[in-house]
Amino acid sequence: MSGVRRIGVLTGGGDAPGLNAVIRAVVKACKYIHHITVIGITGGYAGLVELRARELTLDDTSGLLVRGGTILGTSNRANPFRYPYVRPDGAEEMIDASPAVKKNFEKLGLDCLIAIGGDGTLACSERMQRELGIPVVGVPKTIDNDLSATEYTFGFATALEVATNALDRLHTTAESHHRVMLLEVMGREAGWIALHAGMAGGADVILIREIPFRIEPILAKFRARERRGRPFSLVVVAEGAAPAGGDQVFASEDALTGWKRLGGISAAVARQIEELGGYEVRSTILGHIQRGGSPVPVDRILASRCGVEAARLAATGQFGQMVALRADQIVAVPLVDAIGKLKLVDPGCQMVAAARAVGTVFGDEDPEAVEESEG
Amino acid sequence: MSGVRRIGVLTGGGDAPGLNAVIRAVVKACKYIHHITVIGITGGYAGLVELRARELTLDDTSGLLVRGGTILGTSNRANPFRYPYVRPDGAEEMIDASPAVKKNFEKLGLDCLIAIGGDGTLACSERMQRELGIPVVGVPKTIDNDLSATEYTFGFATALEVATNALDRLHTTAESHHRVMLLEVMGREAGWIALHAGMAGGADVILIREIPFRIEPILAKFRARERRGRPFSLVVVAEGAAPAGGDQVFASEDALTGWKRLGGISAAVARQIEELGGYEVRSTILGHIQRGGSPVPVDRILASRCGVEAARLAATGQFGQMVALRADQIVAVPLVDAIGKLKLVDPGCQMVAAARAVGTVFGDEDPEAVEESEG
Amino acid sequence: MSGVRRIGVLTGGGDAPGLNAVIRAVVKACKYIHHITVIGITGGYAGLVELRARELTLDDTSGLLVRGGTILGTSNRANPFRYPYVRPDGAEEMIDASPAVKKNFEKLGLDCLIAIGGDGTLACSERMQRELGIPVVGVPKTIDNDLSATEYTFGFATALEVATNALDRLHTTAESHHRVMLLEVMGREAGWIALHAGMAGGADVILIREIPFRIEPILAKFRARERRGRPFSLVVVAEGAAPAGGDQVFASEDALTGWKRLGGISAAVARQIEELGGYEVRSTILGHIQRGGSPVPVDRILASRCGVEAARLAATGQFGQMVALRADQIVAVPLVDAIGKLKLVDPGCQMVAAARAVGTVFGDEDPEAVEESEG
Amino acid sequence: MSGVRRIGVLTGGGDAPGLNAVIRAVVKACKYIHHITVIGITGGYAGLVELRARELTLDDTSGLLVRGGTILGTSNRANPFRYPYVRPDGAEEMIDASPAVKKNFEKLGLDCLIAIGGDGTLACSERMQRELGIPVVGVPKTIDNDLSATEYTFGFATALEVATNALDRLHTTAESHHRVMLLEVMGREAGWIALHAGMAGGADVILIREIPFRIEPILAKFRARERRGRPFSLVVVAEGAAPAGGDQVFASEDALTGWKRLGGISAAVARQIEELGGYEVRSTILGHIQRGGSPVPVDRILASRCGVEAARLAATGQFGQMVALRADQIVAVPLVDAIGKLKLVDPGCQMVAAARAVGTVFGDEDPEAVEESEG
Repeated sequence: MSGVRRIGVLTGGGDAPGLNAVIRAVVKACKYIHHITVIGITGGYAGLVELRARELTLDDTSGLLVRGGTILGTSNRANPFRYPYVRPDGAEEMIDASPAVKKNFEKLGLDCLIAIGGDGTLACSERMQRELGIPVVGVPKTIDNDLSATEYTFGFATALEVATNALDRLHTTAESHHRVMLLEVMGREAGWIALHAGMAGGADVILIREIPFRIEPILAKFRARERRGRPFSLVVVAEGAAPAGGDQVFASEDALTGWKRLGGISAAVARQIEELGGYEVRSTILGHIQRGGSPVPVDRILASRCGVEAARLAATGQFGQMVALRADQIVAVPLVDAIGKLKLVDPGCQMVAAARAVGTVFGDEDPEAVEESEG
Repeated sequence: MSGVRRIGVLTGGGDAPGLNAVIRAVVKACKYIHHITVIGITGGYAGLVELRARELTLDDTSGLLVRGGTILGTSNRANPFRYPYVRPDGAEEMIDASPAVKKNFEKLGLDCLIAIGGDGTLACSERMQRELGIPVVGVPKTIDNDLSATEYTFGFATALEVATNALDRLHTTAESHHRVMLLEVMGREAGWIALHAGMAGGADVILIREIPFRIEPILAKFRARERRGRPFSLVVVAEGAAPAGGDQVFASEDALTGWKRLGGISAAVARQIEELGGYEVRSTILGHIQRGGSPVPVDRILASRCGVEAARLAATGQFGQMVALRADQIVAVPLVDAIGKLKLVDPGCQMVAAARAVGTVFGDEDPEAVEESEG
Repeated sequence: MSGVRRIGVLTGGGDAPGLNAVIRAVVKACKYIHHITVIGITGGYAGLVELRARELTLDDTSGLLVRGGTILGTSNRANPFRYPYVRPDGAEEMIDASPAVKKNFEKLGLDCLIAIGGDGTLACSERMQRELGIPVVGVPKTIDNDLSATEYTFGFATALEVATNALDRLHTTAESHHRVMLLEVMGREAGWIALHAGMAGGADVILIREIPFRIEPILAKFRARERRGRPFSLVVVAEGAAPAGGDQVFASEDALTGWKRLGGISAAVARQIEELGGYEVRSTILGHIQRGGSPVPVDRILASRCGVEAARLAATGQFGQMVALRADQIVAVPLVDAIGKLKLVDPGCQMVAAARAVGTVFGDEDPEAVEESEG
Repeated sequence: MSGVRRIGVLTGGGDAPGLNAVIRAVVKACKYIHHITVIGITGGYAGLVELRARELTLDDTSGLLVRGGTILGTSNRANPFRYPYVRPDGAEEMIDASPAVKKNFEKLGLDCLIAIGGDGTLACSERMQRELGIPVVGVPKTIDNDLSATEYTFGFATALEVATNALDRLHTTAESHHRVMLLEVMGREAGWIALHAGMAGGADVILIREIPFRIEPILAKFRARERRGRPFSLVVVAEGAAPAGGDQVFASEDALTGWKRLGGISAAVARQIEELGGYEVRSTILGHIQRGGSPVPVDRILASRCGVEAARLAATGQFGQMVALRADQIVAVPLVDAIGKLKLVDPGCQMVAAARAVGTVFGDEDPEAVEESEG
C-alpha cells in the first residue's frame, strides 16, 4: 500500500492541446480506480506559492476531453526557486519561494504532485522532490515534440494538423498565381513541426535549425520545378531556422541590420528569394494558432493515456518518474534522465531521408544536383 | 436564337475558393443545357493578349468542384488597355494591347467572353464590350465581399471559416494564459471578414476601416472583462483598420515612424495595448491562408449557381450583365451599374448593431460606458 | 416604454446547431442593451409546466457560442395543451396543462417568453399568446430549413457541411472501386439538405420527396457516365424521397413487404440499383450526426442575429412576432403568418434548375435524354 | 548493384486514405533517388492478369498526396490463383490465372512488384514470389489496423478522425435530449477503431468483438450516470461486436430471428437498451465514410514513409519483405512472418485498461460494481 490519499495536479508553461484531457484522465482514474482525491492547483507553480487550489470531481471533467487550453490555468513564473516578489516599496526582487511551496503542499494535505509541463516545469519538479522531499510524477508537454525521453508528446499532432491545413490552403494559391508561398511554423530549437508538416503538406523546401541552409539549392529547386511546368513552390520555415554561416550570408541591407530584426527568419528568407531569385513570395506566420483549440483524436488519446498512467504512478507511490510514449506503450522513465536534453532532428534520420526522397530540399544540398533532379 | 456557339472563360485577379466551381458549372451547363463549346483562356486577360487557350470538356471538370485555386491560372497584369511590353532593348513600357485581345477573340471564334474576377477585371470587361464590341458576361469574385451589386460573393464564407477557426484556437490559449490575442484578417477597404469572423468567433473587439478606433474604449472593455473574472480577450483587426485621427494618436516612437511601418496595423495596436494597458498580447496575421483551399459547401453552391447563370446569360445573348445574389436568387445586373463602387460596412447597419448588442467593442464607444457595461 | 423587465427563454423540439448561440445572444443583448433579466426555462415547455427555471447571467454565456446542443435542454412533450399526466394508478392520460403554464409564467414574474423551436413549438407559442395572453416572441429552428417565412434557419448550414463532408469522402471510394455510393440525409418532408448537399458534393443523382423518382433515368445516368469513363456515381437521398407511383414500382419482394420496411428508402433504392442495374452499391445513413456538434460560422452568426433581434422585439413589447431572415436582414413576421406551412422545394425553382444544369438527375427525366446527355 | 530498372506498383483490396500518398512516394523516390522506372498497374492483380498498365512519372504525382482513393484503382478479384473466367457459353468458372501474371510481368519488363494491400493481397504476393519467382515488396494497408507486424497502418488515423468527429456531434444531441446515442464503426474482426474512437470521443461504452458483452453492465453504467445528473450516454459499437453467449442472450423476437438479421449488431443493441433499460436510443452506422477522403497529416506522413522505404527495398533487391512501423521507425519484415495473423485487441492491454480507468464500460464488468462507480 502506498498510502497515497490526496494528490495535487498542476499545469505549467505554454499552452498545448490535450492539457485538459490529461487533467480529466487523472481525475477519472483517481476516482474510478484508485479512490483518491485530486486537488487542482491553479496558475501552475504560482498556485502552490500563493495557495490557489480546489478539489476536482467527476463533474469538473464534463466536456473537458475536447476542450483546448487548461482549466487550471498556467503561469510564466514557473520557478518557485526564483520567484518574483513585490516589496512594500514597489520594487520587484527574486526570492526563493520554495518554503511556501513546501508549506502549502502540507497545508493541502497532499501526498504527491502531478506536474504537467515542459522541460522547465519538469526540471523544477525534479528539484522539488530532491530538495524539498515533495513526491512528484511528471507528464511531459511540449508542442515542439522536443523532449528526449518520449517519442511523441500530446499537442504535437494538433499543431501538425493546423500547419498542414495552412499548407493545403497555400498550395492552391501558389499554383494559381505562380508564386512561392512561405509558411513559418513553431520550432525555435527543434524543427519537428516543420519537418512533419512539410512532409504532410508536400513542401518543396523545409528549413529547420538543425540543418543550416543556403539560398542557392532553394533557388535551384524552384528553377527545376519551373522547367517541369511547376512555376510555384511551397516553403516551410521553422522559426529557429538559420542560414549556414550566419548573418553575413544575406545580402546588403539584411547583413547590416541582421536578419533576425527583419520580422523573423521567414521575412529574411522571403526577401532573399525575391531579390536573388526574382520570384514573387507571400509569407504567413502561423503563430499561436498552432497551440490552441480542440486536440485531434490522436492527441486526446495520448493525453488520456498519459493522465491514466500518471495517476497510477502517483497512487502506487512510484515518485520521481515521468510518463513517456515508446513503441506505442506508455512507460515510466526517471525524471532525472528525461530533463535537460532537447530531442533535435538528426539530419541523418529516417524522416529527413524520406523527405529528401520525395524531393524536398533542406538547403544543404548541392545546387547543381538539385537543378538536375527533376530531369 | 442568340446564335452563340463558342464562349471563352477566364479568371482574373486574386485567388478565391470557388473559382474552379464556377468554371465547372459553366462547362457543364454549356454542355448539358446549351450545347455550346467552352474555351478556357489561361492567365486571365494576359491569355487573351498572348493567345493561350484550350477547349474545356466534361473531362476537365472532374474533381474541380472541391479544388481551390483556378485551373485557368490568373494574372496580376489584368488590364489589356495598359499592358506591360518589353522592348527589344529590354526596357518595359505600357502599351494598349486591346487590339490583340480583339484579334485573338476573333481568332478563337468566340461569340462571348465570361470574365470571372474582381472589380478591376469586371471594369476591364465592361470597357472591352463598350470599346471593342466584345460581348461579355461577368461573374463577381471578391474574397472581401465588397462588391456593391451582390449580397455575397463566393469565397467569402470560406475565408470566414478559416478566420473563425483561427479565433476558436486562439480563444483557449487566451483563456489559459490570461492574454489578449489579436488576429489580423483581410479587408483593406471593407471590414466584412473582420465583422463576420468577429461575430462567429465571439471577439471582444473588432476593428475595421469603416469605424476609426481609439485605444481607450478597447482597454475599457479589457478592464470590464477582467473585473468579471475574464482576464483575457480576443481582438480581430481588419488589415485596413486605422485609428481615429490618424498616426498622431499612437504614442512616441510609433508616431515618429508611422504605424503603417510597424509590421502593419495589428503590430501597432498590439504595442498600444501592451504599453498603455499593460496586457500581454500575442498577434497572428492570417494572410493568404484565407484565400486558398477547398471552398466550404456554401461557396461551392454559390459558385455553381453563378456559373450556371453566367452560362445562361451568355448562351441567350444577354451581354453586358453580371450575375449577382439577391434574396437567395441569382439575378443579372448591368455591369455598368455594378462596378466602381465598393460595398463598405455601414457603421449603422444591423450586423454592427448586433455585434454591439452581444458586447463587441469597435473602438468608437464611450470608454466609461464600456467599463460599466459588464456590471 | 414597454415595461418589460423579465423575459423567459426556452428551446423546444429537436436539436440544431446554434441553439446555444441564440440563448447567448438573448442573454447578452438583454444585459448590454436592454438591461432586463433573462430566465432560462429547462426542458422546453415541460419546464414551464413543471416549473424548472433559473436566471441566466453573462457568466452562463461563456463558451456557449461554439457549443452544440442547448444548455436549456429540450423535450419531446412540446405541447402543454396536450400534456402527458401519470395518474396515481400508473395510467397515463393527456391533460390540458396550459393553466400550469399560465400560473408558472406569473410565478416567475415574466413579462414575455422567447420560444426557440420548430413549427410545433411556434404554433404552441402562438396559441399560448392567443388563448392565455402570454406575450411571446418566436425564433424559428428547423434543421431541414422548411419554415416558410424565412430564407434560412440556423443549423442548416452545419447539417449541409456534415452531409457534404460525407459525400467528399464517399467520392474517392466510389472512384477507386467503381461503385455507386448512396447517402441518405435528413428531410422527411422537404428536400433542402439533399438538394444543397448534392450540389455542394457534386452528386450525380438527388432524390427528394418533392420530385417523385423512377429508377430508369437514374440507371441511364450511371450508364452515360460509364460510357464516358466514369464507372462510379454518387447518389443523395432525402429520407422522405419516394418513388413515382408508390410501392408497386419496386420489384418483387419489395413490393410485397413495402419499401418503407426495408430499412428506409435508401435501402430500397440501393436494392433496385443493384438488381436492375447490376451495380455494386454501398449505402450510408447519416442520421443524427447532421444535427449535433459545433455550428459552422454562418450558423453562429445567423443564430446570434436572431437572438439579438428576438431580445429587441421582446424588450420593446413587439409580441406575437417571429424573427426571420430575408435578403440578408433579420426582420419580424407575425407568428400567425409563419406557422403551419412547410417551405418545400419547388421542382421548378432556380436551385433545382441549376442542379440539373450541372448534370444532376432527379429521377423524373426522360431516360433516353439522360443517356445521350454525356455525349 | 541490384540491377533493378523497372518496378511495378499496384493497389489491392478496400479503400484506405493514403494509398495515393504511397504511390506518390514510390514514384518520387524511384525518380529522385534510385533513377528507376515505375509502372502503375491498374485494378489490382486484375491489371496484371489482363495487362492494364502505364508508366507513372513525376507529373502523375501532382496533387496526389492529399487525395483519397487510389489512382490505380483496385479490384475485389484479388487472387490470380483463383480468378473468375467467363467461358464462351457465358458460365463463369474459377481458373488459375497466375501464368498470365507471370507472362505479363515479363512482358512489362519488370524487375520487381510493389504490392500495396491488405492481408489477402500480401498473402497473394508472397505466394507469387514463392511459386512464380516474381520478386515482391509489400506495403501493408488495413483501415482496421489489424495487421500483426506493424504498430499502425496508414488510413487508420483518418478513420479515427471521422469516427471521433461523429461522436463529438452525437455528444451534444445526447446531452440536450437525454438520450443514448449509438455509433457503429468498422471492425469486423478487430475493435481498434471502436477502442480508439471511443477513447478520443469520450464514449461511456465501447463494444468490440474481442470482449463479448452483456447488457446488464451497460445499463448499470447508464443508471449510474443518470444518478450523477448525466441522463445521456454515448456507445461505440464495432460492427463485429457480439454478445457473450451468442444469440440467446437477446430477448424474445431477436432470439428467434437472430440479431445479425436485425440490421446489424447496433440495431440489436439499440433494441435491447430500449426494451430492457427504457432509454430512448438513436443509432448511426458510419459505413464507408470512414475509409474515404483526404488522409489526415499523420496518415500522409506514414504512407509517404512506407512508399519511400518500399522503393528502397525494391531498388536494392530486398525482396519478399514488407515495410512496417515499429517504435517510430519504418522497418522491413519478411512477408511470410507478417501475413495470416490478425492483430486483435488484447482485453488485458494497456489501452483497454486506460479506457476502463476513465470509466468506459466494455460490457464484461460486474453490473453492481459499475453501478457504484460514479459514487
